[in-house]
Amino acid sequence: MAVHSIVELIGRKRDGAELTSDEIDWIIASFTSGDIERYHMSALLMAVVWRGMSEAELAAWTEAMLHSGEVLDLAAVPAPKVDKHSTGGVGDKVSIPLAPIVASCGVAVPMMSGRGLGHTGGTLDKLESIPGFSPAVAPTDFVPLLLKHNLVLAGQTETLVPADKAIYALRDASGTVPSIPLIASSIMSKKLAEDLDGLVLDVKVGRGAFMKTVAEATELAETMAAIGRSHGTATVAHLTAMDQPLGNKIGNTLEIAESLDVLRGGGPPDMIEITKTLAVEMLVMSGIARDADAAISMVRRAISSGAALSKLRDVVEAQGGDPAIIDGSRPLAEAPQRHTLRAQSAGFVRECDALAIGMAVVRLGGGRVSAEDEIDPTVGVVLAAKIGDQVAEGDELATVHYSVSDQLASALPMLEQAWAITSDPVGVPPLLLNRISGR
Amino acid sequence: MAVHSIVELIGRKRDGAELTSDEIDWIIASFTSGDIERYHMSALLMAVVWRGMSEAELAAWTEAMLHSGEVLDLAAVPAPKVDKHSTGGVGDKVSIPLAPIVASCGVAVPMMSGRGLGHTGGTLDKLESIPGFSPAVAPTDFVPLLLKHNLVLAGQTETLVPADKAIYALRDASGTVPSIPLIASSIMSKKLAEDLDGLVLDVKVGRGAFMKTVAEATELAETMAAIGRSHGTATVAHLTAMDQPLGNKIGNTLEIAESLDVLRGGGPPDMIEITKTLAVEMLVMSGIARDADAAISMVRRAISSGAALSKLRDVVEAQGGDPAIIDGSRPLAEAPQRHTLRAQSAGFVRECDALAIGMAVVRLGGGRVSAEDEIDPTVGVVLAAKIGDQVAEGDELATVHYSVSDQLASALPMLEQAWAITSDPVGVPPLLLNRISGR
Repeated sequence: MAVHSIVELIGRKRDGAELTSDEIDWIIASFTSGDIERYHMSALLMAVVWRGMSEAELAAWTEAMLHSGEVLDLAAVPAPKVDKHSTGGVGDKVSIPLAPIVASCGVAVPMMSGRGLGHTGGTLDKLESIPGFSPAVAPTDFVPLLLKHNLVLAGQTETLVPADKAIYALRDASGTVPSIPLIASSIMSKKLAEDLDGLVLDVKVGRGAFMKTVAEATELAETMAAIGRSHGTATVAHLTAMDQPLGNKIGNTLEIAESLDVLRGGGPPDMIEITKTLAVEMLVMSGIARDADAAISMVRRAISSGAALSKLRDVVEAQGGDPAIIDGSRPLAEAPQRHTLRAQSAGFVRECDALAIGMAVVRLGGGRVSAEDEIDPTVGVVLAAKIGDQVAEGDELATVHYSVSDQLASALPMLEQAWAITSDPVGVPPLLLNRISGR
Repeated sequence: MAVHSIVELIGRKRDGAELTSDEIDWIIASFTSGDIERYHMSALLMAVVWRGMSEAELAAWTEAMLHSGEVLDLAAVPAPKVDKHSTGGVGDKVSIPLAPIVASCGVAVPMMSGRGLGHTGGTLDKLESIPGFSPAVAPTDFVPLLLKHNLVLAGQTETLVPADKAIYALRDASGTVPSIPLIASSIMSKKLAEDLDGLVLDVKVGRGAFMKTVAEATELAETMAAIGRSHGTATVAHLTAMDQPLGNKIGNTLEIAESLDVLRGGGPPDMIEITKTLAVEMLVMSGIARDADAAISMVRRAISSGAALSKLRDVVEAQGGDPAIIDGSRPLAEAPQRHTLRAQSAGFVRECDALAIGMAVVRLGGGRVSAEDEIDPTVGVVLAAKIGDQVAEGDELATVHYSVSDQLASALPMLEQAWAITSDPVGVPPLLLNRISGR
C-alpha cells in the first residue's frame, strides 16, 4: 500500500473523481491508526455525502472497514451461515423469533446485534431483559456454541470493525450521517465480518424508520445488495413498512413476550408475516429448503413442533439466561403501573405514529438518548388499535406500562398525538413493499 | 448571540439551507475560541465548497472574520482612505509604484501586504529586499505615519483577522481551499479591517493566477464586490491577464528595480498600463480626481515631477529602509551569476508561461514552498521576449540571475519549457479584460 497525500485525496473526492481501492485502504488504515486527523476525515466524509461513491469505491471502503479489526472465521462450521439485519424501527423484535426458527431448521445463525439508540430499540437490549442472559460471548466460545446450537446471540465486540466505530462517532459529530453509501458500508462491514454465506436485510421505510421514503429505502437496499455482490455474499433485501410500530408490544420485556407468542404459534399478524417471509428467504438462500413452498412448511413445523422455542431456550440457557422465562414457567418482569390511553372520538385509525410511540418509550425510560444511558426494560406500550381498526369513543388505544409518574407525564403528550382517527374507513396498509436481490 | 448546535448547523448547510448572521457569528467566534473542533469546521467548510454562500451569508461570514481581532481605526485621518489588492501573480509588483503615486496625489493608503507562497511573489518580500526596511509598524505608529506620509507599507499583524489565519490553515490542510465565497471572504475580511473608504481589486486571470478562467475570475470579482457593497465600502475590480508574467523582471530586488523604473517615468508598457489604470480608479473613487481625465493628468504629474518617487523614498526611510536605494545613489544587491536562455528556433513568441517562470524563481531560491522558507532576494529572471515578440534562432529569451549552480540546474527545465515559438505572427494579448463595479 503506497503512502498518499490525504489533502490531495480529499481534493480528488471533492472534485468528483473516483478514489482507487489502494487509496481507500490507505485512508481507512491511516484513520484507524491515527495517522490522519479527524478534520481530514470529516472533510472527506462531507465530500462523500456530496459526491456519493461508485460501486467500486463502495466495495473498497466496505472491505477496508471490514478488515480494520478481527473478523469471524466460521470455516469450521459446516452448516450454511445466514444472518438477518434490520435497519431499525419501533417494535421490531423479528430477529428474536426468526433466528431460532431458521436455526432449528439447520441454518447456522452467527447473530451479532447492537443496542438501541433514540426511538428505535435494539435486539441486544431486548435479550438482556432475560435475567442472567449475556451477549458477551468469548471469541473461543463462538464457534463451539454455533456448532452445538446453530445459533449465537452475541453483541458486537470492540475488536469487530473498529474503523466503523471511529468513523460512525465522527459522522455523528460532524453532520455527515445522511449518506446512503456511508450508511450501507457501515451496516455491511459489520454483517460481512460475520463470515456469512448469505444475508437477508429488512429495510424499514416510513415515519418510524431512518429511511422516510420508498425511493431512499430502495437506494439503500440496492447499495447494500451491491456491496454483498462485490463481497461474494448472497444478499436479499425486503422493504417493509414502518409508519406504525411492528406488532403490538413496544418495550424490552414486552417485546420478548411478543416474540415468545410468535414462537408458540400466536402473535400479531404483522409480526407473523414478516417473520415468516424472512425465514423463508433465509431457508431458500441457505439451500436448506429447495423452494419457498418447502420453506414455509419447515417454518410452520419449527413452530408447531416447539423446535424453535426449544432452540431459543437452549441458546438462552447456554448464554447464562434463565430458561424458565422461555418455557413460560417463570414470568417476565413487569412495570408496576398501568395507564390506559383512550380514543377521543369514534372512527377508523388513520395513523398510529411509530416515531411518536418510539420516542414515548424513550421518555418512559425504555430507550436511550445517549449511548451511555441506562434503560428500564419493563416499561413500554401495548397497542390495542392500529391503522385500519375501528374504534368507539372511549375505546382503549393502548396501555402504557410505566414505573415513574414523571416519565409517564413526559411520554403522554407524545402518545396523545400518535393516533389520528378519521370518520372514513381506512384499509390495512401493505407491510411488504418490495424485494431487492443482489444476485 | 445565542448558543447553537454545530452539528445541526453543519447539517443545515449540508442540506442547502441558509445560515443566519447570528449563527455565522457564533460559528466564527466559537472556532476562534476553540469551542468548536477543527473536525466540525472542516466538515462545514466542505459543505460551503459544495453549497456556496448566499450574499447575506457571505456578508455575515466576512464581518464575523473581520471582527475576530483588532481592526484599524483611521477616523483621525481626514484624507480618503483607499487601498488596492491583487489576487497574486508572477512579476506583479504594481503596488510598489502605485501606492506612492496615489499617496502623493492626496489619497491615504494604509497598505497591509502579505508574503509570497508558491509561484506568486509577495509585496512584503519585495519591500524587505530594501536594506533596513521593516514592515513591522507598531499599532501606535500607524496613524501618525499615515497622517504624515499618506502611506504606510505594513505587514499583516497577528492580531488582524485571526479567524482568517486559523480558517485558512485548516482549509489548506483539509482540501477546502477552492471555494469562491471562502476565497472572497478571506481577502475582503483582511482588506476591510484596514477601515477603508474604497478598495480597488486586481483579479488576475490565466495560467500564472489562482483563477484560470475569466468565468471564475468574474465570479470572484463579483463576490468580492458584493461583500464591499454589503460593508458599505466602494469596491471596483479589474480582471487582468496573467498568462505571462507582468513586466520584465521577476524576483525580489529585480522587481524593486522595475518599480523604480516606473516611478522614474520608464518601465515596461504592461506595468505602466496596469499601474495607471488602477491609479486612475483609486483617484476617482477617492474623489480626489473628478474624473478619469483629471486622474490621468495627476498620475502623469506625480511621476514627471518626481513626487511619487520622493513619496516612496520618505516612507521607506520612515520605516527604516535605506533611502539611497530609492534615490538610485546606492545600487540594489545583485545575484553573482548570470545565465542566458536563448531561442531554439526563429519565429514569434506564442507562450511565455507565468506559472513555469514563477516556479523557476522558487527553484532559484527566490520564493517559498513552505511559509517558513528563507528566500534569496537577489535571484530571478529578466525577460527579453514576451508574447508577440519576434525572435531569431539564438536570440536571448531571458537572463537568469542566480547564486547556486544546483538551483540554476533545477530551474532551467522549467524555464526551457516556458516559451513556445511559432512561425505565424502572434498579436500582443489584451491586458485589461473586464471591470466590475460593486456599486
